[in-house]
Amino acid sequence: MIWQDLQRIRAESPLILNITNYVVMNTTANALLATGASPVMAHAIEEMVEMTAHAKVLVINIGTLSGPWIASMLEAGREARRRGIAIVLDPVGCGATRFRTHTAQTLIDEIHPTIIRGNASEIKALIRAGAGGRGVDSLHTPDEAGEDARALARAAHCVVTVSGAVDLIVDGEREARVANGDPLMSRVTGMGCTASALTGAFAAVNASAFDAATRAMTLMGVAGEIAAERAAGPGSFQMHFLDVLHGIGEADFAQRVKPQAH
Amino acid sequence: MIWQDLQRIRAESPLILNITNYVVMNTTANALLATGASPVMAHAIEEMVEMTAHAKVLVINIGTLSGPWIASMLEAGREARRRGIAIVLDPVGCGATRFRTHTAQTLIDEIHPTIIRGNASEIKALIRAGAGGRGVDSLHTPDEAGEDARALARAAHCVVTVSGAVDLIVDGEREARVANGDPLMSRVTGMGCTASALTGAFAAVNASAFDAATRAMTLMGVAGEIAAERAAGPGSFQMHFLDVLHGIGEADFAQRVKPQAH
Amino acid sequence: MIWQDLQRIRAESPLILNITNYVVMNTTANALLATGASPVMAHAIEEMVEMTAHAKVLVINIGTLSGPWIASMLEAGREARRRGIAIVLDPVGCGATRFRTHTAQTLIDEIHPTIIRGNASEIKALIRAGAGGRGVDSLHTPDEAGEDARALARAAHCVVTVSGAVDLIVDGEREARVANGDPLMSRVTGMGCTASALTGAFAAVNASAFDAATRAMTLMGVAGEIAAERAAGPGSFQMHFLDVLHGIGEADFAQRVKPQAH
Repeated sequence: MIWQDLQRIRAESPLILNITNYVVMNTTANALLATGASPVMAHAIEEMVEMTAHAKVLVINIGTLSGPWIASMLEAGREARRRGIAIVLDPVGCGATRFRTHTAQTLIDEIHPTIIRGNASEIKALIRAGAGGRGVDSLHTPDEAGEDARALARAAHCVVTVSGAVDLIVDGEREARVANGDPLMSRVTGMGCTASALTGAFAAVNASAFDAATRAMTLMGVAGEIAAERAAGPGSFQMHFLDVLHGIGEADFAQRVKPQAH
Repeated sequence: MIWQDLQRIRAESPLILNITNYVVMNTTANALLATGASPVMAHAIEEMVEMTAHAKVLVINIGTLSGPWIASMLEAGREARRRGIAIVLDPVGCGATRFRTHTAQTLIDEIHPTIIRGNASEIKALIRAGAGGRGVDSLHTPDEAGEDARALARAAHCVVTVSGAVDLIVDGEREARVANGDPLMSRVTGMGCTASALTGAFAAVNASAFDAATRAMTLMGVAGEIAAERAAGPGSFQMHFLDVLHGIGEADFAQRVKPQAH
Repeated sequence: MIWQDLQRIRAESPLILNITNYVVMNTTANALLATGASPVMAHAIEEMVEMTAHAKVLVINIGTLSGPWIASMLEAGREARRRGIAIVLDPVGCGATRFRTHTAQTLIDEIHPTIIRGNASEIKALIRAGAGGRGVDSLHTPDEAGEDARALARAAHCVVTVSGAVDLIVDGEREARVANGDPLMSRVTGMGCTASALTGAFAAVNASAFDAATRAMTLMGVAGEIAAERAAGPGSFQMHFLDVLHGIGEADFAQRVKPQAH
């Protein structure tokens, strides 16, 4: 159950190591803290092995990728594999440039992420060369990427989350959908990256990657709904979203989660 | 008219490629999203040509400049010129160090920005060696830089926006002033950078660089006034500012824009 | 008195040069602005000497450290020493990796910071190899690090601030404690980094490093208390915190500061 997992996150404050992009570092650190986890943001190759050793989960996000960071992502990823630490990969902008597509594919081949979370264009680009979007936007709905997501999950032996108005989570055999959320979330930068970071927090307390991925999207969606109801726009939405992550209770999930997403 | 341009931004969601500074990446991405545009932040030289090809406008900001980024700025800028994509240059801190002044001058010489937006000290430093400020503050008012702004606009064949309490926009022949805004805006980091980013959004839907520059400053000023009226300080100002960008309507401009700024 | 120092910061707007981490650049720039200071964030080795020459105080923070930044920190630090400019060092994550511990120790040896501010684990790690925490969290209370803080202050001839529920400030002879603050502050990223930045602002107007360090923690604690009373969670806390820094008055300190912290 999501509530039990969230209580564990709050009680255990698992350390989540993020090698992520400049745009969302502050946002995702605050979302992890508001949820109850303990974020570390680091990227120097000199400390990747030691930092990974402290972490419960590694989250890799290629949003503002550059050459030197790739080496650090690979180094941390390999150490995470050696230690059996779950890895979440967010292939931001995959498909928009060959550099991103190639880097994401290399990361998948080399470090075998436990969970990949992207929008439909990014997920399609990972499995079909040249199918990607123009940047961080998606040109497709999650269900349009369903076939590709299942193929990616089977090929990479991982869970794939395709986020959108209705999120799709697949692992090659099972699938779940999360229909919570609000359109205002697409008017705030870094909500996808935050979803990936929270996926890391749930993976730190739940050995089932499929359940962790599904529950992270459920928390995103439910917290997003509540925050949007209180917000006057994308500025106040961000504030309320962090407050809701911090204060959300069992009843909020009971009232809002649609059966299929559970 | 500004309202028609804003409606086009909201309808077309033009992709704005930003090579910008670490301090404001989140802020300006959120301001572009709240306005209706679609921001991408990227800087790796390996993907500059492809990313630029997706963009309607390129915004270059030297706020946290370093060597490797200059090469990416030049690469993206040259591709933007090849494709006829408008370029906005924000010469942050120009005049404070020779490194910044020299880089800004090189960018102007090499990639011919369509619009340059800075404060009075930055604009003066671009045209007179050694006339700059001590960092991101301006020691001068826009009108004190009027002569230099006109000289720069003529020399660089571009539009120059000098922002301050009353913004000045010149193109060598015409000039406009925008008297909207609020002093609280100077107590929030990145408002100048946001102005440059929004200048990019308007340049994406309006072929007149002069009008785009003027309307972006008008939106900044009007939204800033409304947000300041609702704010208790610089923290709540930031929240309201994004909410206002998202929700601002035709009547807000009609009520607040001074004739000269239109 | 803290109120006189704060009035000087607001009146003189001292320029604080920050070589700091990506996560908090926006946050600390806004906190400095809200307090009345003038922040500059820069890190290119090409401009460190010139930028330092403009600054009243240099703040160095190793939160997202990487190789190229260390050279810039050393360059700026040496210029600051040459000019007699106070240096604040925030050894973020010291003890979590040898890279951070070694870098912080090198900075102390080479540039002799005026004030070092960290949590208990970070301060312990600076004086005892291997005593550090797992990242940015502290495993100890400030008083548990009291002995080490005093040893560090004496060895490095500087003031040491150990922040926590009750902050401890020592200079080898004197000590002060600041008991203001709120637990919500630990659920927001960058509050420690903000404390270091504000320490820089007070050091710009007060020649006593011990008083500057103590008053910065007092402002953090009092503003944090007021903001927490108004907040519904960590999102609204951040907003109120900036508003409070901007608007805080003499009476707020008179009502809330405990005698020992003064």
